[in-house]
Parts: sequence; C-alpha cells; structure tokens
Amino acid sequence: MTRIREVRITPIAFPDPPLLNAVGCHEPWALRTIVELETDDGLIGLGETYGDAPHVALLRRVAPELIGVDPFQTGQLRSIVDAMLGVTDAPDLHGLTGGSSPIKTALRVFATFEVACLDLQGQAIGRPVHDLLGGKVRDAVPFSAYLFYKWAGHPDAEPDAFGAALDPAGIVAQARTLIEAHGFQSIKLKGGVFPPDEELDAVRGLRAAFPAMPLRIDPNAAWSVETSRRVAAETQGLLEYLEDPTEGLAGMAAVAQTATMPLATNMCVVAFDHLPEAVERGSVQVILSDHHYWGGLRQSVRLAGICETWGLGVSMHSNSHLGISLAAMTHLGAALPQLSYAADTHTPWQLGLDVVERPLRFVDGAVPVPTGPGLGVTLDRDMLARLHENYVRVGITARDDTGYMRRLQPGFDPARPRW
Amino acid sequence: MTRIREVRITPIAFPDPPLLNAVGCHEPWALRTIVELETDDGLIGLGETYGDAPHVALLRRVAPELIGVDPFQTGQLRSIVDAMLGVTDAPDLHGLTGGSSPIKTALRVFATFEVACLDLQGQAIGRPVHDLLGGKVRDAVPFSAYLFYKWAGHPDAEPDAFGAALDPAGIVAQARTLIEAHGFQSIKLKGGVFPPDEELDAVRGLRAAFPAMPLRIDPNAAWSVETSRRVAAETQGLLEYLEDPTEGLAGMAAVAQTATMPLATNMCVVAFDHLPEAVERGSVQVILSDHHYWGGLRQSVRLAGICETWGLGVSMHSNSHLGISLAAMTHLGAALPQLSYAADTHTPWQLGLDVVERPLRFVDGAVPVPTGPGLGVTLDRDMLARLHENYVRVGITARDDTGYMRRLQPGFDPARPRW
Repeated sequence: MTRIREVRITPIAFPDPPLLNAVGCHEPWALRTIVELETDDGLIGLGETYGDAPHVALLRRVAPELIGVDPFQTGQLRSIVDAMLGVTDAPDLHGLTGGSSPIKTALRVFATFEVACLDLQGQAIGRPVHDLLGGKVRDAVPFSAYLFYKWAGHPDAEPDAFGAALDPAGIVAQARTLIEAHGFQSIKLKGGVFPPDEELDAVRGLRAAFPAMPLRIDPNAAWSVETSRRVAAETQGLLEYLEDPTEGLAGMAAVAQTATMPLATNMCVVAFDHLPEAVERGSVQVILSDHHYWGGLRQSVRLAGICETWGLGVSMHSNSHLGISLAAMTHLGAALPQLSYAADTHTPWQLGLDVVERPLRFVDGAVPVPTGPGLGVTLDRDMLARLHENYVRVGITARDDTGYMRRLQPGFDPARPRW
Repeated sequence: MTRIREVRITPIAFPDPPLLNAVGCHEPWALRTIVELETDDGLIGLGETYGDAPHVALLRRVAPELIGVDPFQTGQLRSIVDAMLGVTDAPDLHGLTGGSSPIKTALRVFATFEVACLDLQGQAIGRPVHDLLGGKVRDAVPFSAYLFYKWAGHPDAEPDAFGAALDPAGIVAQARTLIEAHGFQSIKLKGGVFPPDEELDAVRGLRAAFPAMPLRIDPNAAWSVETSRRVAAETQGLLEYLEDPTEGLAGMAAVAQTATMPLATNMCVVAFDHLPEAVERGSVQVILSDHHYWGGLRQSVRLAGICETWGLGVSMHSNSHLGISLAAMTHLGAALPQLSYAADTHTPWQLGLDVVERPLRFVDGAVPVPTGPGLGVTLDRDMLARLHENYVRVGITARDDTGYMRRLQPGFDPARPRW
C-alpha cells in the first residue's frame, strides 16, 4: 500500500507586477510554498499554498508526522494537523481574506496536504482528481479576466509587459489584453484603489467596450455602507455581483437590503463558522470559495453543498498563484455542480512563469479539465530551485501590501472604510 | 476503463416480525430491492433500497441509461437520474420518513446507484468505500439496540423467536435479548404505540435495568406539542435525545423551546430544502441521516458537514434492511467525523437472514469497519433467488403498515397527533 515516505516543503518567490488594491500594492515578489509528498512507490503528490513564514513553519511542524501515512486517509491527516497545531493562530498581515482563527489556520495547513494527498490518490489509481470528487460535470472550468489598477512597473524598475492602468481607458485596455490572450468571457475589476466614482467610470467603460460580458467589482471592503448602497443603486443592471463592498456581516447585510445585484464575499465568510450568521442576516448571496483556506477540495465540496442548500451562489477566489493551484481549482470546479460563476485567477499576471511543466492553459477563457491521473501537473525542478533561490535571496517573509505601499507613500492609510 | 455493461434490479421479500409503530404494524414480509451493476471487466457493485413498486419502476426506468457509464462519474449519474425522472414524485404510503417530493424521489433512485458505483470504485482500485470518503476516522461504527413493541407473532402464525413485548417488562426483556446477542451500548425504543405514560414506564424500566445506557424514544410524531412538552419535562435527564415527538418544523420548534434534551428527527428534516427552515426555527438538534433517501453516501457527508456547521448532532435512521445497507451505513459511519450517536439498525430483527454471504456482525454493539475492497460484501445468489421468489409469491407491492393493521383492527386510526 502506498505510504508517504518523504515530505518536501519549499517556499518560493516569483516576480509579481505592482497590482494595487485597498490595502496597498503587490510587492515585486509574490511568495508561495510548494509541497511534495513522496510515497514509498515513488509517486509525488503536489500541493501549493501561501509562502508567509508563520504558515511555512506550521507546514514544517506537521510534516514529520505524515511519514508512513496512507494518502487515502485524509481524515487521519486532519487529526494529525489538529493535534500538531492545537489552538495556533497564524494571522495574515494583509487582511484581504477576512480574519484568522485557529480553525482557519489549521484548515490552511490541512488543505495544502489534502490536495497533495488527492494528487497521490489519483496517481495511485490512474484517475484524475475530479473523479475522486464524483467526476466532472463540465469539460472546462470558466475563469474571469481579473483586472487590476497598476503602475507601469515597480518603482525603480523597468515597466512590465502590462503597462499602467490607472484610469478607465487603462482598465479597458488591460481587459482587451487579457481577453485577447486568454479568451475570458467575464471580467472582474479589483477596486478599492480610487474613489468609487472613478472606479465606476471604469466599470462603465468596460460595459461600453464589452456590451455582453458579465462584470464585477471588488473594492475589498473599502466602502462604507452608505457608499456601498449608493454604488449598488448606481450600478443596477451593470454588475453580475458586487464583491465585498463593505466590511463585516452586519454591514454587508445592510447593503444587501437595498442592492438589486447579489453580494459576493471572500472576506466576511471565510470559514464554516461564519455561515450561520451570514445566512441569518442575509449578508451575502455568493460565496467565493478558496480551497487554500476553506480546508481543501472536499471541504470546498462541503461549502458548495451548503451554498446550494441555502440558495447561495458559488464562485472561486484567487491570490497570486502558480500552476498547482490552478490545477486544483480546475479539478474542483469540474466536479462542482454548484459552480455558478467564472472563477477568479491571477494566472495571467505571472506571464507564463510557472513551477510546473506544461501548465494548464485557458481556451476561450476556460481551462479544459485534465483527464490524466491525479492533478495532471508535473513539477519543473529547475524552476522550483530557481524560485526557491529567489525566496532565499529577496528575504521577504510575508505578504505585506501595506508595508510596501507605505515605503513608497508614507502617509498611506488602508483603514476601512476609506470612502 | 471500467464501464457498466449490465444493470440488474431484483425486488425481494423477507420475513419480518410484527413490529408495531404509530402508523400500524410491519407486515409478515418486508420488501427491498437489490441492485447489481456489472462492469465490462466483471466487477459487480451492489446497492440495496426500498422495494415499493413505484420506486422499483423508477429504478428500472433509469437502468438502461446506465449502460456504458464509468462508475466514477456519479455526477453524470445524477444528471441521468434527473433527466429520466423529471418531476416524478413517488410518495411512500407509510409516511414514517416525512413527506415526499420530486427531489427526494430522484435522490432515492440516485442513492441506490451511487452506493453501487462506490462499491465498484472501491473494487476497481482495491480500496474500501470509506477510503473514497476520506478514510475511516474510527475502527468500528456503533449501533443501538432498536426496541419495538410487538406481538408474539403475526396473527394466525406461530410466535417468533422474540416473543411479545407489549409492556415495560416485555420491552426490558427484549432489550436484554438484543444486548446479550449483539453487545449494544445504547437503546432506542420505537414508541407511538401506547399512550405516552405507558411508554414512559417502559423507558423508566430500561433505565432501571440499564443504569448507564443512553436511551431514546421515537413515537413517530404521534404526540401533540403539549404532550411532547410534558413528556420532555418528565424525562429530563433520562434521554440522550427525543426523536420526532411531534409533527412538523413548527411543532418541533415549540417542543424544543422547553425541552432540556436534544430533539432528533428523520421525519421533519428529510431533504436538504428542509434545513434552512429547521435551522431558522431551531426545530431539531440532531439529524438522523439515511443515505437511502438523502441521496447516497457523498450527499450524507454533505449533510453531516451542514450539521457540523450549524451545531447539529448526527445519527442514522434505519428501515428494515439487509446486509448491503448495513455495509453502506458502516462505511459511511466510519468516515464521518461528525457521527455523534450510535446509529439505528433493524438488523437483529432479520435473525441472521441475509442476501449477502458473511454479513457484517456487531461486536460490542459496533460493526468493525471492513478493510477489503468496495463495500466488502458479496451477494448470496441462491438467497437472492429465494427472496425474489418470496416477492413474486406474496404479492405485496408497497409497505403498508396501516393497511395491515386495519385488516386486524378495522377501527385503527393513525391520524396525528394521536395523544
């Protein structure tokens, strides 16, 4: 029987454009961690997760306990993670995916290994991961064009391939670039960077340029309830959903009372224990799931089942990521009957750089569902080594969009609500 | 790749003792249907479900569509069932598991084939079914001693091996018999047969005879809210939970307001669309899941995930069944971290008769979790043929406890609430 004989945990850093959001700006380097579970019969299961040092330390705390574990025993894996982590809480600095808690911390660690175990399971039985979740219900998983306000390049660096996008024209041009390259059929704009009316001008510009394309905006809770209500009223008929306009379940519920479009979140509902209050208040109508912190692919299936039961829509959230996460999202999206919106992805922003050989690609804005065993992606070891060297060299140990922004604009204040 | 090449659907009838409940009495023959999915590489996946003719007809309607399907594609299976059944509604006559609906009808059909597909998946990859659900989190699944008021035997027949149980002494004696034979460590009494005070005397008799054993009573909603509240008050500290004392989500919520023990149900929450109102009202604190109508093993995992999210306990309901269902319940129970109570089972009432070779057995009241491939049970073809001959010969086409009782007691009226 297949058993885990070695666990390799490799934090990496890769170049990231200066993408702006409500809490600051992406640093020149994005962090991730690549996890490899190697079995005694030579299979290698892959996982991809956050690269912040406290999270990496927790992965390393759990790793030795996984030696000898059968990768089909993810229930046992969960027990091991819970036992090793106890009530440890490792908050994020950026606060873009809600608050943290010991449970959420444990689920982030568990999720990393669970995906790698499912990759191993699929390889061991010669089946794609989606077959372990009930099989695919679609042949391709749709993703959205994820637009960001951005500078032309990082300060003191050459402009990047995308150029600046700091006004409606820049956003529309960016949309054209991403859509031409990948065929996306829906658009998400990361907002919360400029005053809402300026961002609404960008949304209107997108509507004019792409008359039939679903549009969303996500200001990461930078708006007050009053501002959110006004924006919702002014964008009636324009948005397929409005994502995290304001902070907290009470605020979102107040906005939902008058908004005509669904409200979506990956900030106020980011763990199972947020769901009862969210449902009771009617705070949100769409959950942006994210297997990296909801606890892996099977817990994401559970979340989608809850959403179906309470009549909530399901989409997927994304941080900067590489090809292992894209593969995991694609297998999950393939098997989820409830996936009701195109998922977010940062993939285009990495300009083809990846830690896997032959990463999955978008065709007409959707990733064709892999049919080979496991996740269907293979580690590029030379690239892994290079990206790990980056990590060691650049010395960043946690995502800190606000700290980076403050080094450039000392007075920057991300306090919410900003408008 | 493994594909389904033949579907065999065999309704069966087997002897059943005269077990009494709120709607009447078990007839001398209980009905089930055995489903076999045979693959082109000769594997046979087993399912067990209800034997009522309308349900059998629906199974047969779907069966031809399953030829050529890969048993890993249960998402596709669900689509096939939905497409074939449309808005068909096949209600039960007995009403002991709540109302019916087109969704519940479709899920009953889907569940049958899903379990058989999971059996095939496990066999194909050499893994027990629980490994397809995340692996076991316990080595044995606890079941309860399921006590029934009963006559000594069916009218005009010899007394059965259990003898009569029509008063507290009879119930306590029955408990001793079942516990001595199987080692059960908790007790459920099917009530709703005699006035509540008589049944409470039986519960008190059980407490005196088994001072440390968890006790439950289930009158199948035979009581009014007022009666239920009184019983709950009088049994404070006596019951681990009170099952379906009264009818409906509103009534149960009214009882829950004053009851000090949890209320359990397999009558007012029997489909996912009942959960939002049940949660909002606080109607129940424990859900008795049943994969036969909740939609199979993975939908039961979903239900348990919902229960955990909303702080509800999880147990399992049982109808008269044989060894395939017991195996399916055991694999599910093995993989469910949320299983918080011993499950119900009718197994002892079949006195060892089974449609599988070497059926699973209770050790200290719990079924050791099988470790072989699939469900781990094999069809006894001679017995299947005999039980099918029974079905053809006896001519019963639907479970009808009330009709049977009325033939014996013409004035019998199961209208709720009876007390």
